[in-house]
Amino acid sequence: MNKGRLETFSDGVFAIAITLLVLTIAQPNDYSNLARQLLDRWPSLAVYVVSFLTIGIMWLNHHTVFSYVQRIDHGFYYVNLVLLMTVVFIPYPTEVFGEALRTGAGERTAAVFYSIVMSANALAWSVLWLHSSVRRRLINDEFPEKLRRSSNIQLIAGLGINLVSIGIAFLSPYLCLALHGVLGLFYALDPFSRQVDHDSTI
Amino acid sequence: MNKGRLETFSDGVFAIAITLLVLTIAQPNDYSNLARQLLDRWPSLAVYVVSFLTIGIMWLNHHTVFSYVQRIDHGFYYVNLVLLMTVVFIPYPTEVFGEALRTGAGERTAAVFYSIVMSANALAWSVLWLHSSVRRRLINDEFPEKLRRSSNIQLIAGLGINLVSIGIAFLSPYLCLALHGVLGLFYALDPFSRQVDHDSTI
Amino acid sequence: MNKGRLETFSDGVFAIAITLLVLTIAQPNDYSNLARQLLDRWPSLAVYVVSFLTIGIMWLNHHTVFSYVQRIDHGFYYVNLVLLMTVVFIPYPTEVFGEALRTGAGERTAAVFYSIVMSANALAWSVLWLHSSVRRRLINDEFPEKLRRSSNIQLIAGLGINLVSIGIAFLSPYLCLALHGVLGLFYALDPFSRQVDHDSTI
Amino acid sequence: MNKGRLETFSDGVFAIAITLLVLTIAQPNDYSNLARQLLDRWPSLAVYVVSFLTIGIMWLNHHTVFSYVQRIDHGFYYVNLVLLMTVVFIPYPTEVFGEALRTGAGERTAAVFYSIVMSANALAWSVLWLHSSVRRRLINDEFPEKLRRSSNIQLIAGLGINLVSIGIAFLSPYLCLALHGVLGLFYALDPFSRQVDHDSTI
Repeated sequence: MNKGRLETFSDGVFAIAITLLVLTIAQPNDYSNLARQLLDRWPSLAVYVVSFLTIGIMWLNHHTVFSYVQRIDHGFYYVNLVLLMTVVFIPYPTEVFGEALRTGAGERTAAVFYSIVMSANALAWSVLWLHSSVRRRLINDEFPEKLRRSSNIQLIAGLGINLVSIGIAFLSPYLCLALHGVLGLFYALDPFSRQVDHDSTI
Repeated sequence: MNKGRLETFSDGVFAIAITLLVLTIAQPNDYSNLARQLLDRWPSLAVYVVSFLTIGIMWLNHHTVFSYVQRIDHGFYYVNLVLLMTVVFIPYPTEVFGEALRTGAGERTAAVFYSIVMSANALAWSVLWLHSSVRRRLINDEFPEKLRRSSNIQLIAGLGINLVSIGIAFLSPYLCLALHGVLGLFYALDPFSRQVDHDSTI
Repeated sequence: MNKGRLETFSDGVFAIAITLLVLTIAQPNDYSNLARQLLDRWPSLAVYVVSFLTIGIMWLNHHTVFSYVQRIDHGFYYVNLVLLMTVVFIPYPTEVFGEALRTGAGERTAAVFYSIVMSANALAWSVLWLHSSVRRRLINDEFPEKLRRSSNIQLIAGLGINLVSIGIAFLSPYLCLALHGVLGLFYALDPFSRQVDHDSTI
Repeated sequence: MNKGRLETFSDGVFAIAITLLVLTIAQPNDYSNLARQLLDRWPSLAVYVVSFLTIGIMWLNHHTVFSYVQRIDHGFYYVNLVLLMTVVFIPYPTEVFGEALRTGAGERTAAVFYSIVMSANALAWSVLWLHSSVRRRLINDEFPEKLRRSSNIQLIAGLGINLVSIGIAFLSPYLCLALHGVLGLFYALDPFSRQVDHDSTI
């Protein structure tokens, strides 16, 4: 199986999912009161921003994981496919969450739903990474053994925080959204990316 | 004709079709009862998953076929174009099938429709493969002659099962959906992919 | 300017435009009468097929033109951008044409509109080609001088038939649609593609 | 971090955003009066054309900036991500602006909104460029020092004109739209592109 072509296919899916997010913000339905209608949509814009940055950072991590994988087996392909399935699904809970916050109905349910989808995504990431890194099955020699442990811890921690966000959603939908924004930053600082810093020259 | 560019174009179409699937799940229309509304959409989610995995596995098989094709002629291009036309169309019956199961109306018709589209897709695959492999017209020397026969048999069998699913649709729409899920696994185990297992190292 | 990256960008736009076509077929609105609803949508499916094949063949011709262009100037970039703008627009008249035929209202207007958009597209193609080939400004030495004349004639003829289709639209929308299907085949046989036949081995 | 893969990802996002623009033109809702309905949509078509050309020219400038960047750091990645977020968002104000002009309600608000989004985009461009070029941090030796100053001036000027367009929007929405069309041409003539002219041979 060709790693490059799977990478291109995955990149395409990430790029399209991130772009479809714009469709999650409901168009105004009353143009005689447009300013108010647009301002009322700020929660949809906020969820849009969080989802956009989350997918963008995921793409970066996906790239980094691929750079440390030296070969791909069928298991990797199928776990990656399930991972992409959760990424592609993100626009749906994004729209639900934004609409619930805007209309002020079903906010807790929407936040729980959003957090469950993000947890499923974090789970897929963990499985993909463990599948690749346990006993260094698919990763190459350049990936330092020390980093392997810390990346495992961070991925499990990320999954844990995602699961906690389901609980937070019951307390406060807005706090839950903020937590997902922070989680994005958490993943932006993950070991994969830090490593990349050192050899970022082309 | 450049094989690489046709491959990239096809990959793009697969990636977009698989991503558009998320639009097939109807947004909630009553946020005061959101949990119920989301749970009611489980059939749409189920069809989404089946269609997503089916297209993802198709992409893998497309990749494998291309790796065994050494040159492309106009016939190949046009059959591939018709194949892509059936792939791009999949989100439509996916939405119809999910909505019919959710609303509990037109379920048999929707299952028949979904099965017909999948049969048309399986037919396009068979034509593409026969066009390439009969008398080894377009395939390269690496493709073993023995595999050529077994892959033909499997493709025809897949087409046959797809046609049978049209009949199953009349009996039970849910059984029909399950059969399409199994068919995805069937194609995941096809001779092309098995072959790839042996040289999956990059 | 990098030819490869412009080619990739154009390919992406073609791939997305061809995939968005599936959204032009209206979802059923009455599932209790689903079979009838689906059958009633055959004109939308017919326009979908014509537009899909037309864009697919255009992509092939775009590929061929690029293979004969040895350098790209800003004029080429901007004419190509306008060409892509007409390609991206095609889903809109496709939906209008299909819906008009399905509902039996505004059919002539819709056929005229579809034909005008296709004429604008054919005009953009002619300008792109003339910009590249007049005095062999941008084309490479491999492109035979004899072919240059015949390709000019065929492009002008294609534009002419597109303009005639506007008139046909007033007579019969269905005849107009059939003509656009035939026009697709006409472009499939254009000199660029024929030439490619001879060196299609990779 | 691999410059090529980020370039491909960005290209994909540009290609999809530019293609989704076609969805911003509202479908007719009364086919018995189709010609009138289509003609009434000319403002949506006009905003579509302006947004399409703007994104197309942005893509060209993005390509040019990347050709002068010799390495990518995390800051570059995140600023580029925010830039893409503003690009992906453009279809939303495009639809709002077109609909407001068509229905004759909320036109000033829509023009202000469109101008704000374009200003945010221009700001992201300026930050991306300054991040790359200040003290020549990321740019390569081929980029002439003289051009660095003039490109800074032009980017700031572009941002300034975008901010002015917010004021123009209050005076006349149509003048504001025309200004954005002119701004597209302004960016088409920016120093990056001019530079490219000299070495456009492949």
